[in-house]
Amino acid sequence: MDTVHGGDSLGSFADLDWDRAARRGYPEAILCAGKTPAQVEAIAAELAGANQPVMLFTRADQEHATVILSQLPDAAHDATACVVAWPADPPRPTGGLVAIISAGTADLPVAKEAQLTARYLGRPTELVVDVGVAGIHRLFKHAALLRRAKVIIAVAGMDGALPSVVAGLVGAPVIAVPTSTGYGVSLGGIAALMTMLNSCAPGIAVVNIDNGYGAGHIAAQIATP
Amino acid sequence: MDTVHGGDSLGSFADLDWDRAARRGYPEAILCAGKTPAQVEAIAAELAGANQPVMLFTRADQEHATVILSQLPDAAHDATACVVAWPADPPRPTGGLVAIISAGTADLPVAKEAQLTARYLGRPTELVVDVGVAGIHRLFKHAALLRRAKVIIAVAGMDGALPSVVAGLVGAPVIAVPTSTGYGVSLGGIAALMTMLNSCAPGIAVVNIDNGYGAGHIAAQIATP
Amino acid sequence: MDTVHGGDSLGSFADLDWDRAARRGYPEAILCAGKTPAQVEAIAAELAGANQPVMLFTRADQEHATVILSQLPDAAHDATACVVAWPADPPRPTGGLVAIISAGTADLPVAKEAQLTARYLGRPTELVVDVGVAGIHRLFKHAALLRRAKVIIAVAGMDGALPSVVAGLVGAPVIAVPTSTGYGVSLGGIAALMTMLNSCAPGIAVVNIDNGYGAGHIAAQIATP
Amino acid sequence: MDTVHGGDSLGSFADLDWDRAARRGYPEAILCAGKTPAQVEAIAAELAGANQPVMLFTRADQEHATVILSQLPDAAHDATACVVAWPADPPRPTGGLVAIISAGTADLPVAKEAQLTARYLGRPTELVVDVGVAGIHRLFKHAALLRRAKVIIAVAGMDGALPSVVAGLVGAPVIAVPTSTGYGVSLGGIAALMTMLNSCAPGIAVVNIDNGYGAGHIAAQIATP
Amino acid sequence: MDTVHGGDSLGSFADLDWDRAARRGYPEAILCAGKTPAQVEAIAAELAGANQPVMLFTRADQEHATVILSQLPDAAHDATACVVAWPADPPRPTGGLVAIISAGTADLPVAKEAQLTARYLGRPTELVVDVGVAGIHRLFKHAALLRRAKVIIAVAGMDGALPSVVAGLVGAPVIAVPTSTGYGVSLGGIAALMTMLNSCAPGIAVVNIDNGYGAGHIAAQIATP
Amino acid sequence: MDTVHGGDSLGSFADLDWDRAARRGYPEAILCAGKTPAQVEAIAAELAGANQPVMLFTRADQEHATVILSQLPDAAHDATACVVAWPADPPRPTGGLVAIISAGTADLPVAKEAQLTARYLGRPTELVVDVGVAGIHRLFKHAALLRRAKVIIAVAGMDGALPSVVAGLVGAPVIAVPTSTGYGVSLGGIAALMTMLNSCAPGIAVVNIDNGYGAGHIAAQIATP
Amino acid sequence: MDTVHGGDSLGSFADLDWDRAARRGYPEAILCAGKTPAQVEAIAAELAGANQPVMLFTRADQEHATVILSQLPDAAHDATACVVAWPADPPRPTGGLVAIISAGTADLPVAKEAQLTARYLGRPTELVVDVGVAGIHRLFKHAALLRRAKVIIAVAGMDGALPSVVAGLVGAPVIAVPTSTGYGVSLGGIAALMTMLNSCAPGIAVVNIDNGYGAGHIAAQIATP
Amino acid sequence: MDTVHGGDSLGSFADLDWDRAARRGYPEAILCAGKTPAQVEAIAAELAGANQPVMLFTRADQEHATVILSQLPDAAHDATACVVAWPADPPRPTGGLVAIISAGTADLPVAKEAQLTARYLGRPTELVVDVGVAGIHRLFKHAALLRRAKVIIAVAGMDGALPSVVAGLVGAPVIAVPTSTGYGVSLGGIAALMTMLNSCAPGIAVVNIDNGYGAGHIAAQIATP
Repeated sequence: MDTVHGGDSLGSFADLDWDRAARRGYPEAILCAGKTPAQVEAIAAELAGANQPVMLFTRADQEHATVILSQLPDAAHDATACVVAWPADPPRPTGGLVAIISAGTADLPVAKEAQLTARYLGRPTELVVDVGVAGIHRLFKHAALLRRAKVIIAVAGMDGALPSVVAGLVGAPVIAVPTSTGYGVSLGGIAALMTMLNSCAPGIAVVNIDNGYGAGHIAAQIATP
Repeated sequence: MDTVHGGDSLGSFADLDWDRAARRGYPEAILCAGKTPAQVEAIAAELAGANQPVMLFTRADQEHATVILSQLPDAAHDATACVVAWPADPPRPTGGLVAIISAGTADLPVAKEAQLTARYLGRPTELVVDVGVAGIHRLFKHAALLRRAKVIIAVAGMDGALPSVVAGLVGAPVIAVPTSTGYGVSLGGIAALMTMLNSCAPGIAVVNIDNGYGAGHIAAQIATP
Repeated sequence: MDTVHGGDSLGSFADLDWDRAARRGYPEAILCAGKTPAQVEAIAAELAGANQPVMLFTRADQEHATVILSQLPDAAHDATACVVAWPADPPRPTGGLVAIISAGTADLPVAKEAQLTARYLGRPTELVVDVGVAGIHRLFKHAALLRRAKVIIAVAGMDGALPSVVAGLVGAPVIAVPTSTGYGVSLGGIAALMTMLNSCAPGIAVVNIDNGYGAGHIAAQIATP
Repeated sequence: MDTVHGGDSLGSFADLDWDRAARRGYPEAILCAGKTPAQVEAIAAELAGANQPVMLFTRADQEHATVILSQLPDAAHDATACVVAWPADPPRPTGGLVAIISAGTADLPVAKEAQLTARYLGRPTELVVDVGVAGIHRLFKHAALLRRAKVIIAVAGMDGALPSVVAGLVGAPVIAVPTSTGYGVSLGGIAALMTMLNSCAPGIAVVNIDNGYGAGHIAAQIATP
Repeated sequence: MDTVHGGDSLGSFADLDWDRAARRGYPEAILCAGKTPAQVEAIAAELAGANQPVMLFTRADQEHATVILSQLPDAAHDATACVVAWPADPPRPTGGLVAIISAGTADLPVAKEAQLTARYLGRPTELVVDVGVAGIHRLFKHAALLRRAKVIIAVAGMDGALPSVVAGLVGAPVIAVPTSTGYGVSLGGIAALMTMLNSCAPGIAVVNIDNGYGAGHIAAQIATP
Repeated sequence: MDTVHGGDSLGSFADLDWDRAARRGYPEAILCAGKTPAQVEAIAAELAGANQPVMLFTRADQEHATVILSQLPDAAHDATACVVAWPADPPRPTGGLVAIISAGTADLPVAKEAQLTARYLGRPTELVVDVGVAGIHRLFKHAALLRRAKVIIAVAGMDGALPSVVAGLVGAPVIAVPTSTGYGVSLGGIAALMTMLNSCAPGIAVVNIDNGYGAGHIAAQIATP
Repeated sequence: MDTVHGGDSLGSFADLDWDRAARRGYPEAILCAGKTPAQVEAIAAELAGANQPVMLFTRADQEHATVILSQLPDAAHDATACVVAWPADPPRPTGGLVAIISAGTADLPVAKEAQLTARYLGRPTELVVDVGVAGIHRLFKHAALLRRAKVIIAVAGMDGALPSVVAGLVGAPVIAVPTSTGYGVSLGGIAALMTMLNSCAPGIAVVNIDNGYGAGHIAAQIATP
Repeated sequence: MDTVHGGDSLGSFADLDWDRAARRGYPEAILCAGKTPAQVEAIAAELAGANQPVMLFTRADQEHATVILSQLPDAAHDATACVVAWPADPPRPTGGLVAIISAGTADLPVAKEAQLTARYLGRPTELVVDVGVAGIHRLFKHAALLRRAKVIIAVAGMDGALPSVVAGLVGAPVIAVPTSTGYGVSLGGIAALMTMLNSCAPGIAVVNIDNGYGAGHIAAQIATP
């Protein structure tokens, strides 16, 4: 067969962006979904010998997590968020507060992925759960927290109405994360996504369905010291 | 050419459901959109000589309204709602209160179509405008009205979040009407429709986009004495 | 890691809306889909010590049902409808009759979820099955029942044509429930949903695909004494 | 510029399928939509000198009709159906009866296009209008006609439920034609199309939205002597 | 719990349309998909004691087939087509020829479901396989068969182009069946369905994706003696 | 007719959110699209007598602009951006730099709406035009500007690829604005929207199609002093 | 207002990619749709003084064409294709033959845009019109031409089946161009696009709907000497 | 049962296009997906006795591969690409270079299917992996390779932005392959497909999602000697 560039085993399937931290201030993360465990293990092995800042492996299923921990025993694994972080201790928090609010219990994995991402990128975070708009008073009791935040991540599936209400209450920018929870015309989160993009309240921008990582990352950038 | 059933001019394009009021308790309405002015005029003329209860012509543009009024001079025309009602005086109100709440100024035509329909079918109605969830306190100041209603019609475009918040507050059933206001991924009201169908609050059922007539009709049925 | 509000185990993923019954007249229900069995069990345990009216757990698979019954042994489990009700005895029926009609055998789980919901919220109910419009005479033989109802729930997948025919026959409002039965361009119930929203008969409002709970809930509200 | 095959003016934009009648038994028709009046006029001129059976021009707007009649003065123009037929007299009817039933007044143009097509291809036809399922008794009064037909064309927009009910009543095959009438989630006829494709009654096949020509053509083939 | 109409076990989930053969000339078929094996078994048991013409069970998986054969041992099971027919011997063929042509090997189950349906409803049938338009000469060698047919069923997935080419060659009506074979933007057969509905050749009508039963049924009606 | 809340003329269609600036730190804006000129004029008249901070009228067509200027002669009208600002002078710029980059000439109206919004909400702004990824070197020459920005607004239609490339270069958060420019499967901006939501680069959040106002608003919040 | 980069009038809305011809071998083209006539005129004026190879203005309506010709009087305008080329004389043809085949008369503007693009980029071209698959023999008579071509552009709307048949006949690569001709579920060309992407024949790649320019450009690249 | 054409076992489900290599210059390939192992084995057995050029089996899962190798022991199986080639040795490379570039690790199977296809059809190939636009410098370091290529295959999922950037850099035609990698609104590759079809850079044509075979085939045609 013809030449494949990058003759070593890692190079045959990946070209890690080592200088991303220098270029952008934030290191690359490894999206495990779509990669074989063997590929993820090779990346973890490469990392073990490198001098890199904190590294996140996202959407890591149990099999991915096992091989990562075999190469990086001092990593931390959060099974709810499907995140492995290496090293396990997050940086000392600096910058503004990232508040994460979540509409339903089923949205928790995405909310925690967002929280962990922002936290490992160096921000202080707080997470509030189960504040759907069907019982709007549950939101109001967290008003003080929302006012303290530099940026708010609002996570919701189904009708996706939470960010609209939040953005109408406070002046911080809101990063809205639709989730794939729901059934029928929730269409795997598309309904919530459309609600959020059409919000009648200004101050909202939206990431992909279930993209807790992306929300946590941009929130960390916004709340940078 | 071969026979077309119903040799008279009206019969060549319409077969009015005269006994609908007897059968269902509510008379037929005439949807003017998609009919030529000549067709609508022929129907109005037929009606002039009939012994029917109140009749509504919906989605009547100015040209439709003119020909109806030429045949039924004692009809009432509401240009905002695109409704012509004949005779002009609605029945004495009976049954429970139908409350209509509307999220934005641009939703007003649909809200008024709903109000007029419920009113001409015999119910007392009240209309509240511009109570979008981006300023949720505007909704709370109408809480007493919402508690008095037997049924609530909630009209909203864009994010369509209003019915979710309303249904979480009170025990009356909510008929949600998505509107085609908005732009981009509002998709002509499909986003609002999907939000409403996915509401995390129970007690909501939904009609077609911009279907104020349908909402007013079922509300009148629900609030029947 | 940073603070997660609600330090006890239940509070880390849920904030139950205990005062919903007082506020809206109807208690909260627990949607089991999307929750882990451990989460559902914790909610059931919390409930065991509470002074609450009837509680429904919906979309409970066999594993969910087992853990609920371990905490609430006097609950009733309907495996077809995927519903667990606690306590097992529904309230004495009051208010108007809720009639449920179902187009096909495959729609039965959704129809029963609707029936159980309305029944446990306190209404008398009757269920008629397999009355699809392909054999429309099967519908007509139930005309007397339809005329007795205060509200009709019409459940159908595939072409979703049943509510249009029903609403043309009687004066009661019709809550239409599309189901995900079918194949090809049924698109998991979207075709039936669109049919129902486009009904040429007035008096129909629609809930999400397979949302028997939502239909039963709003029907109970409509038929309230 | 380089060669364009077919150096004469007609050949630069069209290559008429003259032997279609010999090959398939039915002549080609000219779809005027998308053609300029000059192009249609050139085709009509070519036809004037040809020895062809009956020719239909479909979706002919007023401008198209004028230029056709200028070349073929003995043609017949039906402005409702947007059809021009040449020569004006249809063939003597042979074969089985083609019955056309139409759900609403706004569906009339499509129903007439179907009727004219079947009639000019040589079949006897009968047209019944305004028999939507919201007043299903209007359909039943035409049961005898439906039983006489060799094939039934059922035309409907909005919920598109008419073909399902018709196909459940009689043994003739049903060609269903969705129309673009309606608003909101009718999506320009897609809802009706989906209803028809998902019909719970067997014996239905469907053509494109507003395709009265296609329905009339296949009906003529089915009812061939 | 409240009354469920039809107190016997079969009546609690099904209301068989026994007089369909008398009313429409063709008996009801049982769609097994969406029914539990116990439900299908109860229907088969009911049928065993009835005096009915041929009965088809469609979309019967292996478990469905087993329970049907336990009740109706003299039935025939075609595992490719997922059809069980009772009794096993089809009627003596009468009427015109139903030709079935299939574009690819993967379309075979749908093509055979169509063939079996038409055959058990009493028509002579012939099946030709693997005649995709990428090698169009493979179609031409079957031209004589196509010319002998009263009606042609054309089955294709992916680009769905086969019916257009067939309908351009012969005068028989073409029933087009899109299949869910393919990947990517085949969208489970929607691409093929759209191709067929947009065919530039007249004489085509379309059934739902993978609906071999529906195609065979209407073909049998068209080719009726 | 029954009571309409808010008896004065403005109150019959609008309930302005006067305290939004106090509550959220940013004043309400008036979306003119969907409002009649008379409604917009009434709002402008109300505003003339009020003590409010800067007010933006967005999506103001020429007719809207004329009536606003008749009531608020000291307002500024930008015809490209369809924005009217009152008073005309923006606040002294404070906070971080908002950089706006635009992929094509046709995206300019949206880019300017974003720029004006951020500027009138008090931020310094810079706009760079026509830097599509088909000639990526045009982007690199603005690298210094991108590095100076606290937040970047990236505006693009068609393939919507610009934000992915930008976010890979710098550490500032990127607010991506899809525009409706393009044709065919651009689907009015949906293609660009989907590209942006699926970006392989982290640090991007997205607003609705053509929503320059929303992008400018959240950018102003992010860059707040 | 803040700085807009590129202070001259052209720079305020465009940054022409002058070195594209050097970098890629083919000059930039100007897409007029979405640009104001004033913007197009400014670009033409800039071009008048430049030393550039042939320049194409695409999707130029009559108003665009007029202002271009006012600045570049020696340009050529093709009103069918909506193309203006400057200078008017195409280069001497080199490289392989680009054959363009077009399914229907309404596809002619797109086919000519493709032809002109390939021709002005230096290739010999030939155009064949009206060879839809409904009369497949019309295609076969051009077989010799198809065999001479280095690359074939196949243009079709409606069912979009032409490229599949062509690619099955010859060995040259086929660039398929879906057009927006058709109605109903043609969905503005999406049906044809999907057909082409799902072709059962290998050797086809597809461009955007109506993108004759893109097809002509890549064909010119493929047929490069 | 009635006649099935092609009485032997292979003929009952397939009609191989043996003369495709003679007609088009490239042999048929066997798409295994959708075929049973028994069907694939029968085809392989037929092939074993035939005098054919190289044959590819694509989308062969492990079970397919096993039965092929049992009949054709001298075939080569690439488990990543799901391709079996017979005979194992590709032809001596002739014609221009086919360069394949791939955006992410998860796109590797599709990229290798493309590479193997082009290679077995006789072209020299080179593959570069993991050059997503989020780190655009990774692309630039392969600029020399891109300039040497006669045609470039660009494989990408998620935002699908890679082909736009590549096509802006070099003069070779780009065949873009969207992949189904991603989540949320990647919609199984539809987002990437739409990005590629809307590319603002000319010189791109697109194949179906995950269609590495189709891309490799047309690339081999383009780069033919």
